[in-house]
Amino acid sequence: MKLSDLGEDRLLARLLPRLPLSKSVLAGAGDDCAVVRSPGENKLILLKTDCVVEGVHFRRSDAAAAVGWKAMMRPLSDFAAMSGLPQFALVTLIAPGRTSVRKIDNFYRGLQRAAARFDVSIVGGETSGTHGPITISVSVIGFVEKDRWVSRRGGKADDDLFVTGRLGGSIRGKHLRFVPRIEEARWLTEKFSVHAMMDLSDGLGTDLPRLAKASNVGFKIDIQSLPLASGAKIDNAISDGEDFELLLAISPRERKRLEKTWRKKFPRLPLTRIGQLFPQSAVNASPARTNPKLKSGFVHFK
Amino acid sequence: MKLSDLGEDRLLARLLPRLPLSKSVLAGAGDDCAVVRSPGENKLILLKTDCVVEGVHFRRSDAAAAVGWKAMMRPLSDFAAMSGLPQFALVTLIAPGRTSVRKIDNFYRGLQRAAARFDVSIVGGETSGTHGPITISVSVIGFVEKDRWVSRRGGKADDDLFVTGRLGGSIRGKHLRFVPRIEEARWLTEKFSVHAMMDLSDGLGTDLPRLAKASNVGFKIDIQSLPLASGAKIDNAISDGEDFELLLAISPRERKRLEKTWRKKFPRLPLTRIGQLFPQSAVNASPARTNPKLKSGFVHFK
Repeated sequence: MKLSDLGEDRLLARLLPRLPLSKSVLAGAGDDCAVVRSPGENKLILLKTDCVVEGVHFRRSDAAAAVGWKAMMRPLSDFAAMSGLPQFALVTLIAPGRTSVRKIDNFYRGLQRAAARFDVSIVGGETSGTHGPITISVSVIGFVEKDRWVSRRGGKADDDLFVTGRLGGSIRGKHLRFVPRIEEARWLTEKFSVHAMMDLSDGLGTDLPRLAKASNVGFKIDIQSLPLASGAKIDNAISDGEDFELLLAISPRERKRLEKTWRKKFPRLPLTRIGQLFPQSAVNASPARTNPKLKSGFVHFK
Repeated sequence: MKLSDLGEDRLLARLLPRLPLSKSVLAGAGDDCAVVRSPGENKLILLKTDCVVEGVHFRRSDAAAAVGWKAMMRPLSDFAAMSGLPQFALVTLIAPGRTSVRKIDNFYRGLQRAAARFDVSIVGGETSGTHGPITISVSVIGFVEKDRWVSRRGGKADDDLFVTGRLGGSIRGKHLRFVPRIEEARWLTEKFSVHAMMDLSDGLGTDLPRLAKASNVGFKIDIQSLPLASGAKIDNAISDGEDFELLLAISPRERKRLEKTWRKKFPRLPLTRIGQLFPQSAVNASPARTNPKLKSGFVHFK
């Protein structure tokens, strides 16, 4: 059966469960908007949208369930970056009418499995035909406590820079099955004062300069210290993109306690100190600053 | 200049203003998620996503600013349907690298103008390359007071059915410049007890059966009473889609007061009684029920 045989309402019904998933959802599928309860005045609302496009973020031959998983986990990784808890998702699926319903169902299965992993309710969606590649766009709404919100802007000179996990070579498979570091980020902001944090989506070489710029500081990293994924080289760790690991800046006074408690809490996930933030003036003449590798990462428009 | 010359960050910077637009926005462009204040416990949050695809919802030759306008106004029309106030928008633009930056800027101008019309802040976005048609996906977050939320599900037998404006022929131009009936919907729920409401996006012939089904009732309409747009015929009013007018169900006891006060408040916009809701059993054998015209509307997958 093809997508064009099914029609929009029945297609969406396969994605959106008939009953609201959480008590916060008052209306979902089948109404004009989804209706959800407000998290209350002491919390801030977080909003993020992201998309995956066939031929750009996935190949036609990739398993559809894995593609659905990736489509949901990409914006959830941004929630990790801000220490937020995602709650609700809206999904837009754009596909040619000739696409098999089985393939669509597999996209949905991956989206649902990824959402369930973090108790996210898929509360709305949209479908459209296209003459082009399959595209899945996911918008996520969630919250963060007012005193636990971490932006990219709070980095301070002398802060230590840490990354979670291992970097590079995501395209060989990790990009379709990664788990956003939401639990790790929530633990970090519960136990420590994290000055700045972001998720590595475009590669350390692109993302670290963004964090430094937003924080109005410079940075130096020890290239040799980068935690490499199996089979990855330093170039991959800097430029490949889609690592979806956390990059964070934290006072050097916290370093020992962080390293020790992290090993206990997350024994299987490395946390690596890769460098430090510096005043802008201190890095203008530094080799790291002019290292061409650190100026490039994954670029979407070729 | 082409999109591929500009890069993602600079492209998004053209859409997202550097400073938050409203006091409720704490972080927007340049962070991993947008951060906004919660509307408080006495309000419900509304969520909606919608998209426009080149070749499906607009033609390549359509003015880009008008396409941007439409992309924003489509989800805003769903806020009207629920008597909600939209507040924040996330925009995803997917386009081939060869697209001119001038065209992108014109899309953005239309999106921004439409958002400003209803005090909506564009707080986040995403861009991606593609080998296919240009696609704009817009997700909108807003709120509604707990006692003013209107769904499709509250229609009662004997309710009068009304539509705003005129129906049919939207493809000849209205679909690119319509104004969602947010002000009208807000006025309606302030002054009246509206039982059920929705916006007409896929055509009365598709949308009215949806409202009736959600409300567990049947319907009869007087085909001759349909308010036709200039040049439109009855078939157009039933099947064309993209009218973006309101369809509402309200007690017949309110009819006189509604018609009288509406004419004073919105003298240039017709409000037309087109029929009534009935118990399911009463319409099973009715000609309106079996009228094939009322079974079809705009279908996305061809």
